[in-house]
Amino acid sequence: MPASIKDVAKEAGVSIATVSRVLNDVDVVNEETKKKVLEAIDKLGYRPNIVARSLKTQKTKTVGIIIPDISSPFYPEIVRGAEDVSNIYDYNMMLCNTDLDFEKEMEYLRVLKEKMVDGVLYMSSSLKSNILELINKLQIPMVMVETTSEEGNIPSVTINNKQAAEDAVEYLIKKGSNNIAYIGTDKDEINARALRYKGYRSALKNNNLTFNEDITCFGGLKAKDGYEGMKNILEKTQNIDGVFCTGDEIAMGAINFLREKNIKVPEDINVIGFDNIYSAATFYPKLTTVAQPMYDMGSVGMRMLIKIINKQDLENQNYVLKHEIIERDSCRK
Amino acid sequence: MPASIKDVAKEAGVSIATVSRVLNDVDVVNEETKKKVLEAIDKLGYRPNIVARSLKTQKTKTVGIIIPDISSPFYPEIVRGAEDVSNIYDYNMMLCNTDLDFEKEMEYLRVLKEKMVDGVLYMSSSLKSNILELINKLQIPMVMVETTSEEGNIPSVTINNKQAAEDAVEYLIKKGSNNIAYIGTDKDEINARALRYKGYRSALKNNNLTFNEDITCFGGLKAKDGYEGMKNILEKTQNIDGVFCTGDEIAMGAINFLREKNIKVPEDINVIGFDNIYSAATFYPKLTTVAQPMYDMGSVGMRMLIKIINKQDLENQNYVLKHEIIERDSCRK
Repeated sequence: MPASIKDVAKEAGVSIATVSRVLNDVDVVNEETKKKVLEAIDKLGYRPNIVARSLKTQKTKTVGIIIPDISSPFYPEIVRGAEDVSNIYDYNMMLCNTDLDFEKEMEYLRVLKEKMVDGVLYMSSSLKSNILELINKLQIPMVMVETTSEEGNIPSVTINNKQAAEDAVEYLIKKGSNNIAYIGTDKDEINARALRYKGYRSALKNNNLTFNEDITCFGGLKAKDGYEGMKNILEKTQNIDGVFCTGDEIAMGAINFLREKNIKVPEDINVIGFDNIYSAATFYPKLTTVAQPMYDMGSVGMRMLIKIINKQDLENQNYVLKHEIIERDSCRK
Repeated sequence: MPASIKDVAKEAGVSIATVSRVLNDVDVVNEETKKKVLEAIDKLGYRPNIVARSLKTQKTKTVGIIIPDISSPFYPEIVRGAEDVSNIYDYNMMLCNTDLDFEKEMEYLRVLKEKMVDGVLYMSSSLKSNILELINKLQIPMVMVETTSEEGNIPSVTINNKQAAEDAVEYLIKKGSNNIAYIGTDKDEINARALRYKGYRSALKNNNLTFNEDITCFGGLKAKDGYEGMKNILEKTQNIDGVFCTGDEIAMGAINFLREKNIKVPEDINVIGFDNIYSAATFYPKLTTVAQPMYDMGSVGMRMLIKIINKQDLENQNYVLKHEIIERDSCRK
């Protein structure tokens, strides 16, 4: 039978209340008594019942992470970064996949609140107003990763998506592209990917290049979407010499279509992706891409969340991490 | 302020004990009373404090999943399958990354026990005896995924790894390969990957092909390990015409090395991978591989675990799911 708090009190020759004060660190206990209690805990191998304790302290040392889909290659590194930091600070992390389904997001928030998680790391394409209301009502400490709430009043960690897209398009121009196609996702949402479309448009403008709707395409995030997007664009116009894709898988699909048509990447067309997912460096040709610091987004986000939970000040409410162009083989040297 | 159990009792005109009986489903409550209580719960939007309840019921409706590394491409689909099933049965899942670090595995098991998880889904390369002792001591319901314990006394879900490897090598032989290299990981552990080495050896034997140590190589799981492995093998012998890799990333790395040496896949050498990770179908050439049903391994494992938690019978203690060869472009047609 495992040692109980009573056993510890007996061994240390103090009251149960004193042991509890040491464990919960809520009150001043004289150093010598504290030492005796800690020795007794060590000797008996006592481990407190965390669940009972959390009812008292209203802390569970558990956090939630709400993401669209762990099996989509953008998320695992973020989740790993978050879990590593939660582990360092003795938190455990509940993983919730929503598929961006609004009802599922709402339900997870409610359940996490019921299970008394201390905070939530939240990834969604954009925060709908009903979700914001629920978040306010539930009063769970929260940090957003990848996107921000429209008002920016929820702490967040992101990159500067508009600037990153501008940099990608500028890079293609520097590598000799003038007729640059865009393959992305819905441009009308208020989210990270919509900001990339804005960056594409402004980079064209800054470089006196004409915007041509025929060479833009909006679909999903998968390789097949890139494949189809590239096909659609080439059916309308033949003279493109560069492609900006708002995700690496989109870029891989686009390159696979070009390969089938015997159009050479990068000799005929420069292609740049976005994110720098795990397989970008293994793909052929190795993918040139705009890297998001995914592991850091998860770890910084979790660090912020734990600070908020422990009522420590954040130096910054909305962290913007650095993006970086990774030069590989899908653009000309 | 949210409705309390008192409010529900008052609304339904019954005692708190009756509401509790309905909530916990522990005792017979007459149908009419039950209906009144459920209506009151619905009307007031009452949601029980799950943490307080779990102290009483000794159930938290929370499970743990212990895996090596979510950012390694083999695991996300398994985790997704597991989480989908846990969600269906109203469980939440805590994610724990161990990097196969023995101390970390032990510590996670202890913490999960303290947090009173109802069960654990466990993925490890092989169960060391101290871990088995701890598992027995902690008495947490457990299901193993991908590997089995040596004695097979822990319920598990796997594929037949030896048979799958035999099938892969037979496939290469059928596609014209006779001098088949092996690139894998440690062959001396008692785990899934070691069984694949056994399958490679027995397939050679069954087909009267001579085993040649020079064309086997043991390293890590990454693309760079496949790249290095292929390089080492070709330094020793030039006439191989097929490669069996025990992981898809290994196969991608091997193919990338062959491409650099202008050796054509599949024209000159057939290459087959293992797992069928997400990027296998996007890679060039599209990778022929032995698919493990990863999503199903996670979902079946979680279903088994929830049955064990709820004291339901398992039809089978050690599920062996079907593997399948996915024919793509890295082997000749």
